[in-house]
Amino acid sequence: MQAGIIGLGLIGGSLGLALKETKMFKMILGYDCNSLHMQQALSLGLIDECIELHEIKQCDVIFLAIPLDAITKTLKNFGSLSPHSTIIDLGSAKEQILREIPQNLRKNYIGAHPMCGTENNGPKAAIKGLFDKKIVILTSIEQSGEFQVAFCKEIFIAIGMQIVKMQAKEHDEHIALISHLPHLISYALANTVLEQEKKEFILTLIGGGFRDMSRISKSSPIMWRDIFKQNRKNVLESLGLFEKQIQAAQQMLEKEDYQGLEKWMSNANSLKNFI
Amino acid sequence: MQAGIIGLGLIGGSLGLALKETKMFKMILGYDCNSLHMQQALSLGLIDECIELHEIKQCDVIFLAIPLDAITKTLKNFGSLSPHSTIIDLGSAKEQILREIPQNLRKNYIGAHPMCGTENNGPKAAIKGLFDKKIVILTSIEQSGEFQVAFCKEIFIAIGMQIVKMQAKEHDEHIALISHLPHLISYALANTVLEQEKKEFILTLIGGGFRDMSRISKSSPIMWRDIFKQNRKNVLESLGLFEKQIQAAQQMLEKEDYQGLEKWMSNANSLKNFI
Repeated sequence: MQAGIIGLGLIGGSLGLALKETKMFKMILGYDCNSLHMQQALSLGLIDECIELHEIKQCDVIFLAIPLDAITKTLKNFGSLSPHSTIIDLGSAKEQILREIPQNLRKNYIGAHPMCGTENNGPKAAIKGLFDKKIVILTSIEQSGEFQVAFCKEIFIAIGMQIVKMQAKEHDEHIALISHLPHLISYALANTVLEQEKKEFILTLIGGGFRDMSRISKSSPIMWRDIFKQNRKNVLESLGLFEKQIQAAQQMLEKEDYQGLEKWMSNANSLKNFI
Repeated sequence: MQAGIIGLGLIGGSLGLALKETKMFKMILGYDCNSLHMQQALSLGLIDECIELHEIKQCDVIFLAIPLDAITKTLKNFGSLSPHSTIIDLGSAKEQILREIPQNLRKNYIGAHPMCGTENNGPKAAIKGLFDKKIVILTSIEQSGEFQVAFCKEIFIAIGMQIVKMQAKEHDEHIALISHLPHLISYALANTVLEQEKKEFILTLIGGGFRDMSRISKSSPIMWRDIFKQNRKNVLESLGLFEKQIQAAQQMLEKEDYQGLEKWMSNANSLKNFI
């Protein structure tokens, strides 16, 4: 069997490494629209061979590890696939892909979201073991082919992942709050500090707090532009909820309601009990 | 020589460990208003001996590693000190302490802010090497005694710290933005998610982003209540600046200005260049 990966950055590159380890596939083929990245992926040993985009159809399974708008565009232009081919997207939002996917590909297609990653991108950001013991969400798989569902589960389990099933709509709502909102906040915090402070001050005064809170603001703007675009409604809703919390804190501070503020922070502390 | 530490949590406890290693002091004495914490500090080897609060004056140097309101209260009730005693507070805001410190203690007193810590508290949170290679800000030290300034620099260098001098006012303004604001945001994010999501969903969908962004929301509400209280004006100003960034992002999303959003995120990416 052969596996093909479109997009050889952090996720696609790490997936190449993980798939190699499983020994499920004779060859791991890779394509990236950035030819330098394709060569880097090859020389880093993330894939076995570089191919042209049109050659990817020969693979038994094709992974899409590219920004969301590129996923929808690729699927639209894909043409037909053999009934036993599987195509798996690894994007962070699912509803729009499901709305736009050509119906002739629906049984071939699995919408998967691996809950792992870092702020880095490109083939050099690939990490061995990235998927190990992590959760992968499979979305709306009752519309996918039985063969494809079984095959993709086998692959994700082989690379060490734990499988959770969810509807695409439900996935997009929850992930807006738990992942997309934190990214937007991190970008906003980084911009607030960068606008006010000289680099020297940031370096002098940085502690673990700002370091952690700003880490994901280093993520790819193209990847995140597409995520915010495709999950816009849910992200705006989550942002509204967050703004209410910020305003509550602001009002308590303005009114010097320190007891209220302490209670509000104690409530947040309950995260300690389970993460 | 003897060193005394009031407050034997993360900072005070880690300081006990660090001071022991320097071998500058014959004894490290410790006091905590929580008697269980005091016993834990002793049995964890963070200090050499527990003492009563009034006995702390016998020490050559006294560290205050307690919440800010407790620092101002302790200093007010401290009485007098010998001209060669040094008292160092390790709190996260400085202006109010300087306003409230009795004048007879001003030469004895050094306002220091070590740029390190974690979200954990209590003696069990103490970490060996916490201060190593970290920055400590010494604030408004031109008003402290020459002897005290030289002595405190010697101690901080002995525990591996790098010294930066700053005026208390300047410190409080910058730290509001770089440290206090991120904490407030983290509490707000944690509360947003906790209000909307069941624990199971949070555990399923959590990635490195939310994990990092919510970490400091596990910090002590009492400690942070006092910080927000004593640095209220600067924190409110920083919060206002952050809200403008959040609103800018919200408007771009509402207007579907994805080019603007991408540019806004690329600007945040410039953090990559130096941290």
